[in-house]
Amino acid sequence: MIDPLLPRYLQHDRISRITDEGIYITDRRRLPFEEVEVFCRNYAEAAGAIKEMVTQGGGPLEVALNTLLFTYRTDEASLEEAVLSLSAARPTNTTMKRELASLMSRYESGEDMEALISSAFGYYDDLYDRISDIGEQMIADGDGILTTCFPEHTFMLSVRKAVSRGKHLCVFVPETRPYLQGAHLTEPCLRMIGIECYLITDGMAAHFMREGRITKYMTASDLALEDRTVVNKTGTLGNAIASRYYNIPYYAFSLGLDKGKKRDDIEIEYRDGECIKSIAGVRIAADEASAIYPCFDIIEPELVTGIITDGGVI
Amino acid sequence: MIDPLLPRYLQHDRISRITDEGIYITDRRRLPFEEVEVFCRNYAEAAGAIKEMVTQGGGPLEVALNTLLFTYRTDEASLEEAVLSLSAARPTNTTMKRELASLMSRYESGEDMEALISSAFGYYDDLYDRISDIGEQMIADGDGILTTCFPEHTFMLSVRKAVSRGKHLCVFVPETRPYLQGAHLTEPCLRMIGIECYLITDGMAAHFMREGRITKYMTASDLALEDRTVVNKTGTLGNAIASRYYNIPYYAFSLGLDKGKKRDDIEIEYRDGECIKSIAGVRIAADEASAIYPCFDIIEPELVTGIITDGGVI
Repeated sequence: MIDPLLPRYLQHDRISRITDEGIYITDRRRLPFEEVEVFCRNYAEAAGAIKEMVTQGGGPLEVALNTLLFTYRTDEASLEEAVLSLSAARPTNTTMKRELASLMSRYESGEDMEALISSAFGYYDDLYDRISDIGEQMIADGDGILTTCFPEHTFMLSVRKAVSRGKHLCVFVPETRPYLQGAHLTEPCLRMIGIECYLITDGMAAHFMREGRITKYMTASDLALEDRTVVNKTGTLGNAIASRYYNIPYYAFSLGLDKGKKRDDIEIEYRDGECIKSIAGVRIAADEASAIYPCFDIIEPELVTGIITDGGVI
Repeated sequence: MIDPLLPRYLQHDRISRITDEGIYITDRRRLPFEEVEVFCRNYAEAAGAIKEMVTQGGGPLEVALNTLLFTYRTDEASLEEAVLSLSAARPTNTTMKRELASLMSRYESGEDMEALISSAFGYYDDLYDRISDIGEQMIADGDGILTTCFPEHTFMLSVRKAVSRGKHLCVFVPETRPYLQGAHLTEPCLRMIGIECYLITDGMAAHFMREGRITKYMTASDLALEDRTVVNKTGTLGNAIASRYYNIPYYAFSLGLDKGKKRDDIEIEYRDGECIKSIAGVRIAADEASAIYPCFDIIEPELVTGIITDGGVI
């Protein structure tokens, strides 16, 4: 199914697809310069591709669903092992892990795998649609919207729907170092669906807020708690603070709150500082430099105007 | 004269030097990977090198002083023309322009050029020394200091003096996109003078403030007004706002306030967005992307704890 409101990079078959031979995964590391697929002959290769960051964000979930279906069709006896292998490929992706566990348990209670996978895809399509209906309502005619990183389906659909309903808007896209998801994914996606957008560096948002050109801040969330704490890509906190300073509302999209989890339980993952010291393979710092890389920011509830979920704005 | 407190990149003869043959300028664009000099046979070539950004920040002033001296020694009749040519090479560098005009007027009233140039170098050395004595007093034992861009002599001397006086500190250095002065210049300079420092991306400072690891924010200023408004490299404003949110003092160094200038008169220069779309010659965004690049931030007085000048903290 092709959703005409979604950019090409987020169409199901452009994230991943299966044939009789194996699983194809679009290599997000090479976007927007090349659209090429990585071919995996089995679940082990697909898990390896996920581990090597061939796809990220919402990509691994779709790859996992396709891989489960492919394994069911070609090598049913390995299903259990496929789930273990895929779940282990990205330990922080709790949505993928939870979804796979739930599918397996329903399959083991006798449900049909083909129908299960198809309804799982349908469930997320429907969820994105409902969340973005609410997101769209948060957007006003004339908004300049700042985002951070690659907010995928919920944000893309929200702005696309807002424009379809006659609202004028533009989006400011920080490049999002060190991995540059803003430059590589968000900016091209917005352009594909006809949204006016500007690439900026990660330090520039406050300038445009001060000038009144940014009037709303909207991001995805890697985690959202019931108390309205948001965890999202590094850079989100600074922009949320600047938004508050300039009285700009900050909304985070969430596919589902992490119930029961407390703010003090959140541990911020530090990745290898070497990631900062080069960009696209080019050295930008001295070999001897010490770099530190906290992946995520924790944004306190008082900085969050609302969390946009399918149940409404919290 | 070699100041043992200054990093090698900021020693006079490592910024530029003259021989009987011409003017040598260290190519800052290639630091920290290579320390090479660009050789200029005359003032026209030196002005061309300044225009091509061979050196930046405080570099052009020192090159201009050396070039004036070289021209005086080898081609006295061209002095007037040399001043025009150098001043036009970087129109926004008002310090260099003012200094050259003042030197020429004193020379024309009969003062000795050799002595004038030597006293000009001495004047700045002394100014940096006095300002950094005050900067040093603003640093507390145990501070984690955030900076932005390349704050050169005043900041380097302040932290070096603080450490010499037994204070423990570390510095967080944002890479400072798009030109990466933090990664290319600030981080290596701090390491050369034995300061513990960490390279981070431009969106990460708030995270370390939230964790209590950043306790002070100190930058240079491209312009500072009497009402305490500061103009500095893009990214400074967001960090100043986050500093205020976490009750962290923000100090800007100034070689001299811009007397009489008003905040409303400041025009923020926009440079070509193409600068954002590649890093060190490598493409990081689609050719079709629109990027915008405001060079400087205007920081309101209420966000500035103090401006550090040779007359004290304003």
